Amino acid sequence: MPHKLAFIGFGTVGQGLAEILRDKGDTLRHSLGFDAQIVAVSDLLKGAVYHPDGLDIARLLEVVQSADKLDDYPDSPGLERGWDSLKTIRQSNADSIVEVSYTDIQTGQPAIDHCRAAFESGKNVVMSNKGPVALAYAELSALAEENGVRWGFEGTVMSGTPALRMPLTSLAGNDISEARGIFNGTTNYILTKMEEGMSYDVALKQAQELGYAEADPTADVEGYDAQGKVVILANVIMNAPLTKEDVSCKGISHLTLDDIKRAKAEGKRWKLLARVKKEGDSVIAGVGPEMVPLTDPLAGIMGATNAITFECDLAGPITLVGAGAGRVETGFSILIDLINIERKNL
Amino acid sequence: MPHKLAFIGFGTVGQGLAEILRDKGDTLRHSLGFDAQIVAVSDLLKGAVYHPDGLDIARLLEVVQSADKLDDYPDSPGLERGWDSLKTIRQSNADSIVEVSYTDIQTGQPAIDHCRAAFESGKNVVMSNKGPVALAYAELSALAEENGVRWGFEGTVMSGTPALRMPLTSLAGNDISEARGIFNGTTNYILTKMEEGMSYDVALKQAQELGYAEADPTADVEGYDAQGKVVILANVIMNAPLTKEDVSCKGISHLTLDDIKRAKAEGKRWKLLARVKKEGDSVIAGVGPEMVPLTDPLAGIMGATNAITFECDLAGPITLVGAGAGRVETGFSILIDLINIERKNL
Repeated sequence: MPHKLAFIGFGTVGQGLAEILRDKGDTLRHSLGFDAQIVAVSDLLKGAVYHPDGLDIARLLEVVQSADKLDDYPDSPGLERGWDSLKTIRQSNADSIVEVSYTDIQTGQPAIDHCRAAFESGKNVVMSNKGPVALAYAELSALAEENGVRWGFEGTVMSGTPALRMPLTSLAGNDISEARGIFNGTTNYILTKMEEGMSYDVALKQAQELGYAEADPTADVEGYDAQGKVVILANVIMNAPLTKEDVSCKGISHLTLDDIKRAKAEGKRWKLLARVKKEGDSVIAGVGPEMVPLTDPLAGIMGATNAITFECDLAGPITLVGAGAGRVETGFSILIDLINIERKNL
Repeated sequence: MPHKLAFIGFGTVGQGLAEILRDKGDTLRHSLGFDAQIVAVSDLLKGAVYHPDGLDIARLLEVVQSADKLDDYPDSPGLERGWDSLKTIRQSNADSIVEVSYTDIQTGQPAIDHCRAAFESGKNVVMSNKGPVALAYAELSALAEENGVRWGFEGTVMSGTPALRMPLTSLAGNDISEARGIFNGTTNYILTKMEEGMSYDVALKQAQELGYAEADPTADVEGYDAQGKVVILANVIMNAPLTKEDVSCKGISHLTLDDIKRAKAEGKRWKLLARVKKEGDSVIAGVGPEMVPLTDPLAGIMGATNAITFECDLAGPITLVGAGAGRVETGFSILIDLINIERKNL
């Protein structure tokens, strides 16, 4: 039986995942017994198609990549058009909803409503959108559990690098007293360039040209992006119901080349570190630039790469290094959630 | 129902795991629903005790740590003494065998026979002993599968750092074209000290004094230890039936302080790297010292720490850094195998 998917949204991440399924579908079937089928795509701007027996993935991608619309997807008996996101979630025969609509980190909408509708309809949800996890983890994870379905969101922290699944599956049994890391590639890229002598403004401009930073870079450079990820780590890894308001936050926009030189002279390097830490019975968290000694594995993380260190009582400090963004990497983060739902693994 | 364990061997690793179960048993029960019970310990030199309703872990440790024998473990109705390893494996009511006897990397014995007996008796095996995995992976994994039981050996590569489970659970779906890493803490410690100006001989002596290196350091410094780990990675991660004979092997004992200086001058650092790599339809593997550019995450791994980089087609390069040895760390590696058997996860 194929694992039937409905895509809510069909932008970069959705198309990235669809490309992986198109290109590696046979391999995934043969090597892992994972057989995915896309039955629906519903995108606010691009339109919607649904067929209970499955859509042709190559054709979907051709159509959307030539016209940015789904209108030219060919008719066939049983094909439905124009279903909106909630109708698709509730009435399609999908096993899992791939929620890749868009991210509103202030409200988490419309993704939070999509999750509610999916769980209440007995469907799993997989996503890389931070909003619902950072803003509504307790409510939504309880709702998924009540309905006997699963909620995957590996990609919300460090994209396809398994910052959430690895501690839960491979480090279970440890008391993790602290997780600290570099979760924002844009700021790490800027700091790397500043160490090479570039000013903050020039480095930021270069990051924007490379597509690392948005036109409005506030969320990255002021630390809000990393703040959302710390909230997720606190909730998921430490079972601590922290919200954004509990996480102190300072960015890197005030750092000067003199600051960089001072760190270098002390055998250190500035990094925008995000930390979540157990202190007695409470859990505290914050984001801010720190001068990290060069002996710390996090000091060696250069460019847009991300990394996280887990302090474990049994396994010792364990560090994971990898990409924190990217079309294929984020597509993979959703794929691995689906694979592990299918094989009933965490 | 508790998960019943029989320990074959009760040296450093076995006692390390027993201490974890003594100290964290309640936490593991409450947080993970993992309820372990030791029903048997059988050690060639220390003696053997078995009780189908479970032994007192604290008492076991007290007795063995005061007299290095199990003879003083108190009598009780139903307690059996003197069962040898095979009788314990076949006739005890254990669900899982904790195989921590001793490592003979040449023959893999007696651990290979212990695995065979356990699988044929319908019992899982968990171990950190490289021998059986490096020498008999195909036979033993097939035998476990035929008998519907599990074989855990996370600790054979990088101890409790999840070098085997992480790619299988969290990176599934990727084509891993190469795994390369630093799998021997002794040699990495020696290379770190040589970079500080110490000669090879003095650094080796210091490693021996710290307990990193054996009195006969051959297995470490000539690369044989890393070679065994590469064989395991090739078989487990890449499904390639390589044996030791397929893995070229060169150690670090020929390196001089001049070599170290030369690397430094080129912006590089010597590391004893082990690699397993897909080339067309074949998989090639080798161990040898390499000059690694400082921009590579593996260049920053200092002292006795281990690390591995997986080159993934979807997730990109993912590096995992952590301890490669240690009493508690290795005890944890066996615990995590048991936890994941119990929760039916990989």
